[in-house]
Amino acid sequence: MTKVKQEGKSHKELRKEYTYNKLKGLGQEIIEDIEKNKVPNVRVPSRGTGNIVYDDAKRYYVLGDRYGRRSLGNVKQIRKLGQMVYVANFCKDLVAREKTATIREMYYVSEGWGISFKSQQESNIVGEDLEVTLGTTREDLGLMPEEDGASVYGDITLLDEVEVNASKMGKSGYTISPTIDQVDFLDHNVDKVLAVETMGMFHRLVQENAHERFNCLIVGLKGQAARATRRFIKRVNTELDLPVYICNDGDPWGFHIAQVIISGSAKLAHVNHDLATPDAKFIGVTASDIINYELPTDKLKDVDVMRLKELSKDPRYKTDFWQTEIKKMLKIGKKAEQQSFSKYGLEYVVDEYFPAKFEEMENQA
Amino acid sequence: MTKVKQEGKSHKELRKEYTYNKLKGLGQEIIEDIEKNKVPNVRVPSRGTGNIVYDDAKRYYVLGDRYGRRSLGNVKQIRKLGQMVYVANFCKDLVAREKTATIREMYYVSEGWGISFKSQQESNIVGEDLEVTLGTTREDLGLMPEEDGASVYGDITLLDEVEVNASKMGKSGYTISPTIDQVDFLDHNVDKVLAVETMGMFHRLVQENAHERFNCLIVGLKGQAARATRRFIKRVNTELDLPVYICNDGDPWGFHIAQVIISGSAKLAHVNHDLATPDAKFIGVTASDIINYELPTDKLKDVDVMRLKELSKDPRYKTDFWQTEIKKMLKIGKKAEQQSFSKYGLEYVVDEYFPAKFEEMENQA
Repeated sequence: MTKVKQEGKSHKELRKEYTYNKLKGLGQEIIEDIEKNKVPNVRVPSRGTGNIVYDDAKRYYVLGDRYGRRSLGNVKQIRKLGQMVYVANFCKDLVAREKTATIREMYYVSEGWGISFKSQQESNIVGEDLEVTLGTTREDLGLMPEEDGASVYGDITLLDEVEVNASKMGKSGYTISPTIDQVDFLDHNVDKVLAVETMGMFHRLVQENAHERFNCLIVGLKGQAARATRRFIKRVNTELDLPVYICNDGDPWGFHIAQVIISGSAKLAHVNHDLATPDAKFIGVTASDIINYELPTDKLKDVDVMRLKELSKDPRYKTDFWQTEIKKMLKIGKKAEQQSFSKYGLEYVVDEYFPAKFEEMENQA
Repeated sequence: MTKVKQEGKSHKELRKEYTYNKLKGLGQEIIEDIEKNKVPNVRVPSRGTGNIVYDDAKRYYVLGDRYGRRSLGNVKQIRKLGQMVYVANFCKDLVAREKTATIREMYYVSEGWGISFKSQQESNIVGEDLEVTLGTTREDLGLMPEEDGASVYGDITLLDEVEVNASKMGKSGYTISPTIDQVDFLDHNVDKVLAVETMGMFHRLVQENAHERFNCLIVGLKGQAARATRRFIKRVNTELDLPVYICNDGDPWGFHIAQVIISGSAKLAHVNHDLATPDAKFIGVTASDIINYELPTDKLKDVDVMRLKELSKDPRYKTDFWQTEIKKMLKIGKKAEQQSFSKYGLEYVVDEYFPAKFEEMENQA
């Protein structure tokens, strides 16, 4: 068992304190302006496409230096700034009480604020403004996405209100809740993480005891990874020093599900520092796998070809590995699902494919 | 604690034995035909719309008496019957080894059978043929849907390979796995089940301690309930005698999510005896709730109106309750989400709405 060092405050407590102080700071700034007889204004970093930059050193998208100012001196901005203060106050209350609300609930709650939102679209934008202004995630602010995170199976012990071990929670394992930053890692007995796109593959791995055979955590992504899942993967990678391997369908969509975990998305440039895991590795299904394992395939559709060409120009795909695999897939004109290994029997993927991949990875390291 | 009676074999063992014998029986029938020099044939109940009947006594859709015969004496049917025997054999092996496969995996495995399927569509149909022929669910046969079941929170102890209690598994609770019939109920300390459409409402209920305050299991349906969720609800209702209450969005889609849990779907008429829970009750959001609680609403769209009119003619909606509520909703021309109660504060739904509803239900009973 690798006990996770617990010195002083827990992860949960630190996040709470940090966010609470950020929210308080925003209010204090405004009050100070007023006390100095200055017109209150708030600096809001720009989220426009022109301010989203791929950072080569960090290996994910970040926001650039551009920002705007919301000022109570500008008639057009009074409403927006007022809404932001209301939302910040609502969030401060949530954080203090360790509660959460969905953005839908906040929208309805706001009916009582007098500064009502015209639509949920509008309240969502103010929520994002607050995220980017404070540099915190909306989850830290207590604003929950509706979507559930991934399923995790394997020998890790977490404190999620109660102590749980993800290998003793039934066949579907531990569900990563949107409040993953309120969870503390206590100990674990694994040396890597294996994330897979489909729950079909997740259950296959659990049934074949892959968690024991590979000494790994199994993560069932359920398609495009939820924010909570990306946060969980980032945390186990950085806090527990566990290498992360991702196996998805061998098509542009599977590639991109992995890439968003690895390098983040442009849209969430302002929180990628909490979500991206640049050291995570995509291990398959690659175009090379399709050829080497003679997998059952489907022809690439026009939309697949178009998407592959888009990816080849995306800065996140500029490594030799990706450029080679994208070209190869375009050349063979075929794609394959991760479950297609069952052509050789249900167990093949665990008996043969993953061991070969892990060996390859270790030789590279 | 209410200990669940465990006499003799467990639920899991009984289901396994039943399914295994059904599968073996199918093979024996064919062998007996051959030994008697008869042309083997199998009786397959018809799943055509003409054979799907709403059963007033059972209060769900069932299959009627029509059936077809697949005969090796008919050139057109040889291939179909051959495929069915292969699939049955594959399933028998899964059941014996307590394994499962997705229908996608089976499709790939079938590449080695010599009787290959032209598409997954074709293999899916053969899987359904087998379900209906044997009167078992595909989950019993080891053929897993990809989709996860709902989340459950509250004081129930289950044996899902290991013993788990759904109030001690983190904030997202216990995830119902597709293999819910391999799970045994051990004990519980609740007197009802409250199922809600969204995970937003699920987390609200957990945060407000609704499971303790109402002595209930909280089930987060995640929209249209997965088969595993419907099976779980059916089992807790019949095996543990727990009344089930469903609260969804107040619109035709929320109504129907509840109704499919209650009365099953036409498409799954052949397995509704395992999935439908006719005694489950829809408690809201009703059109009456929208009026009585002065909820924030959206106007009904054309598609909502059309759907409401369809539902009003559906046999599952012929009770006074549904007819009145559908008419009322059409009259006010408005719908409301379950989260809209937060107009009165986040806690209102737990402090006021649900207690009022439960009292109403108890007075009716």
